[in-house]
Amino acid sequence: MRVRALWWDDGRLALLDQRLLPGREVVRRLRSVGEVAKAIRTMQVRGAPAIGVAAAFGMALAAADGRSRPETAAKQLRATRPTAYDLFVGVETVRAAWVGGDDTLGAATAYKDRIVEECRQIGLAGADLFRTRTNVLTHCNAGALATVEWGTALAPLRVAMERGAKLFVYVDETRPLLQGSRLTAWELGRERIPYAVIADNAAGHFLQSGNVDAVIVGADRIARNGDFANKIGTYEKAVVAKENGVPFYVAAPWSTFDGSKVSGRAIPVEERSADEVLEVAGHRTAPARANARNPAFDVTPARFVTAFVTPDGLIPPGKLAARLSRTRRPE
Amino acid sequence: MRVRALWWDDGRLALLDQRLLPGREVVRRLRSVGEVAKAIRTMQVRGAPAIGVAAAFGMALAAADGRSRPETAAKQLRATRPTAYDLFVGVETVRAAWVGGDDTLGAATAYKDRIVEECRQIGLAGADLFRTRTNVLTHCNAGALATVEWGTALAPLRVAMERGAKLFVYVDETRPLLQGSRLTAWELGRERIPYAVIADNAAGHFLQSGNVDAVIVGADRIARNGDFANKIGTYEKAVVAKENGVPFYVAAPWSTFDGSKVSGRAIPVEERSADEVLEVAGHRTAPARANARNPAFDVTPARFVTAFVTPDGLIPPGKLAARLSRTRRPE
Repeated sequence: MRVRALWWDDGRLALLDQRLLPGREVVRRLRSVGEVAKAIRTMQVRGAPAIGVAAAFGMALAAADGRSRPETAAKQLRATRPTAYDLFVGVETVRAAWVGGDDTLGAATAYKDRIVEECRQIGLAGADLFRTRTNVLTHCNAGALATVEWGTALAPLRVAMERGAKLFVYVDETRPLLQGSRLTAWELGRERIPYAVIADNAAGHFLQSGNVDAVIVGADRIARNGDFANKIGTYEKAVVAKENGVPFYVAAPWSTFDGSKVSGRAIPVEERSADEVLEVAGHRTAPARANARNPAFDVTPARFVTAFVTPDGLIPPGKLAARLSRTRRPE
Repeated sequence: MRVRALWWDDGRLALLDQRLLPGREVVRRLRSVGEVAKAIRTMQVRGAPAIGVAAAFGMALAAADGRSRPETAAKQLRATRPTAYDLFVGVETVRAAWVGGDDTLGAATAYKDRIVEECRQIGLAGADLFRTRTNVLTHCNAGALATVEWGTALAPLRVAMERGAKLFVYVDETRPLLQGSRLTAWELGRERIPYAVIADNAAGHFLQSGNVDAVIVGADRIARNGDFANKIGTYEKAVVAKENGVPFYVAAPWSTFDGSKVSGRAIPVEERSADEVLEVAGHRTAPARANARNPAFDVTPARFVTAFVTPDGLIPPGKLAARLSRTRRPE
């Protein structure tokens, strides 16, 4: 069954509240840029490409309300989360249309359609990787929920399955917010792709014991040199994959590539509330006065990446900078 | 405040039910070998050295009940959990006394006293490591709760604190059963050692960013060549520590060293119930029909170990085999 993270519905941005999945499928209908900003900040919608699309529609809602100004609305949306580059691309795309007197809803819709199409192309570009590499590890959720439709990391797996590959996916549960066990497991179950949820701690064991043929993840921001930010824990998986000679792929649409950042050092990493670590699914597990640190992302150096799976095919990290120079910037 | 995992109390084995910490401090008083076997299997008591001591007292309870036989009681206890070598040492120590007509409670008590003393010696042997390496990462719980008193990994930290070191401990929460956020955080809090709980996924980020000066963990079984089994996730931390040039120490009493195993390949790894992964603290988080894999341990190759912290001092992995030949076996 096809999954969609969000869609435009009669003047409102409709989205599945991802905080409540898989227990409940609740659709929120957002009427204002303020509601969209809140939905991004509280992670009702998450995943860099989906955040970008939600923000694009947030700009369109602001343009339509008769009170907002382009710079104010853009600032409000950009302040929600610092790491996902798609957020800035989505905002900028519609801001430019607004300032230029163009149709903002049309610009937001075109942006969404482009992201959906790019994800479909990622699926076609990457599917052959999984014809023989059938035991796959993924981290966090880089599926339809993270990207509107298709997914980034999951798109090639969807296409490979359609082409008859016999896949098995190891799904890191992805603490603290469990996007793997809650969202990726839910998506894979709906599409009848066989999988097992594992504790994040167990990924190394399965990599070491020869059970994993390839790792594929999404990204929140990719620097010019191929360093990339993604959900916390991605760096550990990449290091352990390399140690065991397992190829490591990063799938993303062009809106995730930030050519202005020379390396990963320049990518801002969000630190979220300690409570996300000290509680699990809303239940306190740590001692009453416990302390915690909660970086939401880490930065993986380019040398751990076998290739980026892009809408235009596989690109090894060493060829990325040249490629980004040639590519028309998405804005 | 001093923590004790278990003690002998007027003909019964008293132990803190570690499943309920830190929320509730409940003492169980076990009267039979069957109750002790169940307490080990269900992880009311956990941590290799503490399991060994509990099993030793379980054998003493069996010897006193007038119905049990040495081989039957030993078999029942050995069947509880396959990985921790201390379990087998603790059982064998008291079985030998029983078969030899010696005082079994005396043998169990002497075994417990030896483990406590070895942990104290581990603390003294390792404390100087943390005089300058003050930012420390640990995984799972290798404290007093895992060893009766003192701990293995935590013993050197306790002694270093007493000697005035300004420590800060990063505590991996240790999914699936959260021994880090539930137990290690509780112990460190009681001893006023500053710490932060982190998602297991975040360890790599803090290692990479230069925030961690050393990693120290316990072990469940150490092979002759220095490969060792410990809580799932240990392998990932060891690989990422080496990648970042951070020293990695493994602290254990002699009862954890299994000289009969040539390498880590021969160490049996327990796989526990999928529900431990699909639920968190008893609350279902994954979809209803989700699948999971749940290996409870992984095996870290010796090349990732800087040194073993033993009751007799630091031993680099390359010198372990020779040392084990010289050492009188604990049984």
